[in-house]
Amino acid sequence: MTVTPKQGTVDLVVVGSIGIDSIATPAAEKSELLGGSVSYACAAASFFGRVGMVGIVGSDFPTEYVDLYREFGIDLAGLQHVQGRTFRWSGVYDDDMINRRTLSTDLNVFADFTPELPESYRAAPFFLLGNISPELQLHVLGQAKRPRFVVADTMDLWIDTARDALMDVIKRVNMLMLNDGEARLLTGERNLRRSGERIREWGPEYVVIKKGEHGAMLLAPNGPFLVPAYPLDDVQDPTGAGDSFAGGFMGQLVRRGAADEEMMREALLYGATIASLGVEAFSLDRFVGLGFGDIETRLGELRAMTAVTPGA
Amino acid sequence: MTVTPKQGTVDLVVVGSIGIDSIATPAAEKSELLGGSVSYACAAASFFGRVGMVGIVGSDFPTEYVDLYREFGIDLAGLQHVQGRTFRWSGVYDDDMINRRTLSTDLNVFADFTPELPESYRAAPFFLLGNISPELQLHVLGQAKRPRFVVADTMDLWIDTARDALMDVIKRVNMLMLNDGEARLLTGERNLRRSGERIREWGPEYVVIKKGEHGAMLLAPNGPFLVPAYPLDDVQDPTGAGDSFAGGFMGQLVRRGAADEEMMREALLYGATIASLGVEAFSLDRFVGLGFGDIETRLGELRAMTAVTPGA
Repeated sequence: MTVTPKQGTVDLVVVGSIGIDSIATPAAEKSELLGGSVSYACAAASFFGRVGMVGIVGSDFPTEYVDLYREFGIDLAGLQHVQGRTFRWSGVYDDDMINRRTLSTDLNVFADFTPELPESYRAAPFFLLGNISPELQLHVLGQAKRPRFVVADTMDLWIDTARDALMDVIKRVNMLMLNDGEARLLTGERNLRRSGERIREWGPEYVVIKKGEHGAMLLAPNGPFLVPAYPLDDVQDPTGAGDSFAGGFMGQLVRRGAADEEMMREALLYGATIASLGVEAFSLDRFVGLGFGDIETRLGELRAMTAVTPGA
Repeated sequence: MTVTPKQGTVDLVVVGSIGIDSIATPAAEKSELLGGSVSYACAAASFFGRVGMVGIVGSDFPTEYVDLYREFGIDLAGLQHVQGRTFRWSGVYDDDMINRRTLSTDLNVFADFTPELPESYRAAPFFLLGNISPELQLHVLGQAKRPRFVVADTMDLWIDTARDALMDVIKRVNMLMLNDGEARLLTGERNLRRSGERIREWGPEYVVIKKGEHGAMLLAPNGPFLVPAYPLDDVQDPTGAGDSFAGGFMGQLVRRGAADEEMMREALLYGATIASLGVEAFSLDRFVGLGFGDIETRLGELRAMTAVTPGA
C-alpha cells in the first residue's frame, strides 16, 4: 500500500541538522559535501512517501544542494534560509570505518535554530525528531496536531548536558532511537538488552539500539527483534548511516500507513537496507538516481542472508 | 534424522585444550574451573550425537571432572592422562564482558601434547580441530581415514608464529572458523566480508567469522549467512563461548548427518543457541542437567527475534 500524497501536506516530518561536511575516510577525502542528519534522513525517506524537511541553512548554502533536495521530491516548506554561514563539520575516520575524530564543528546559523513547522506539516502522522537539543525536539512536538508515531534520536551531548529535557522527550515519544554507547550512557547499564528495557520503562513503547556495522536491536512489547546489517565489501563513507537508517525506517512505515510491531520489524529491514546503500558513496551520492527496485533488490539479498534456506 | 551411534565408534572427534581455569568476570570470581576448548566443544556437541574427545590432562586433574565428561556421554578413549600438572589459565574480563586480560598461562602437560586418535575414532565422519598448533592439527588430520567434514579453529598465536603450517591446514579443511580480529590478522584485510572471501580462495569452501556478542558470519558458495547472537540480559562468564558455538554447530551437523549449505545455516543457529546458554554460568555448569528441549526453546526464541512476524 502506497500512501498517495495530498497536495501541500506531508506524511513524514523530519527535523535535524543540515551541514556542509569535510570528510576523510580510508577510501577518500572530500570537502564541501552536503550532510547533516536531516539531509540523510529525508533523502532516504523520500523513496517511500512525501517528506517534509525542517532545518536551517545560511546564505552560503549552495543552490545545487537545494535543487538536489527538490530532485528527491522533498518538501522544503520547513527549510529556513537565513543570513550567515551554514553549519560545518569536518572529521576523519579510523581504518575501521567506525571510530572517527572530529576536526572541527562550527554551528554557525544552526546555533540559533528554532524549528517552526509550516501549517502544512502540523497534521502529519509521522515525525522523526533528529538529533537536535531535546528542548527543540519538545518545541516541534508542541506544534504537531495529532502525531501518530513519533521517533526521537539523541546523542551523548544531550545526555550529558540536558538530561531533564531529554527525559521529557523520552516520555512523550513512541520510539527512542540511539546507538549502543548512548544507551549505556543514558541508563548506566552495560548490557544492551537491559539498557533498552530500562528506557522502555520510562515511556516509549519501542527502543531501537543501533550498533553500526553489527546491525540494530528493537526492544518492543513482543520481545527483541535483531536487525541484521548488510555486510558490505566496500564502504566509502559511513557518515549519516544512522540517519539514513532512521529515514528508511520511517519511510517504510509511511508507505505501509501503519506502525504495528510487524510493520516495524519490516521497516527496520528497509532502514538497514537503505543505510547499507548510503555508505557506498560520500554524501547523498548513492541515493541519486537510485530506484525503489534497487532498494528491493538489496533488501532481498539481506533477507537471503538471514534465511536458513540459501536463496530463499 | 538422528544418527544412531554404533558401539565404540564416534560421529564427531574434537581435539583441543583441556585446562583448569581461574576466572574473574564482573559477575563473579571463580577458580579451579573445568575449562579448555575441548571441554566446552565436547559438552556442547554431546547433546546432538556421539562425541569423542582428544586431549591431555595431568595427574592433578580432578576425577569429578572426568566423571562430568562421562555424564555428558563423551567418549574418552582419546583422553590422555599423564604425569604432571594440567594446563592452567587465569584471566580477568573487563566490564564489557568481551575484552579480557590473561593473568597467567601455564601450559604444563599440554606443552608436550601429541594428539593420537584411538582406532575407534579414525573412521569418524566429522572432525573439529580446536585451537592447537597447526602442526598438531595436521597430525590429527593424517590419522583420519575418511573425514567427511573437517572444521579447524585457530588463534593469533599461530597466525603470528606458524603461518606456513596454518596455511597447510587451511588448504585441507572444509571450514575455517575464527574470530574477526584473527581474520583481519590472517588476511591483512580490514573488511570482514572480503577477509572471509580471501580465506575461501585459499581452499576451504566455508569460512565462519565469529563476532562474539554480535553473532557470526558464514561465507559460503551461495553467499554470506548472518548468524544472530541471542541478546542475553545476564552474562556470567563468556569463556568458551566460541568453543560451545563450534561444538553445537558440529553436533547439529552430526544429528542431521549432512553438511550441505542449508544444514550448515541451521547448525550455526544451534551453535549460537548453545553458546548463549553456556555463558549464563561459569565453566560447563549451564550444560549440566540441560535437556534438548531447553536448547529447542532457546533456538525458538532466537528465531522469533529474527522473523518479521513477532511470535512466528
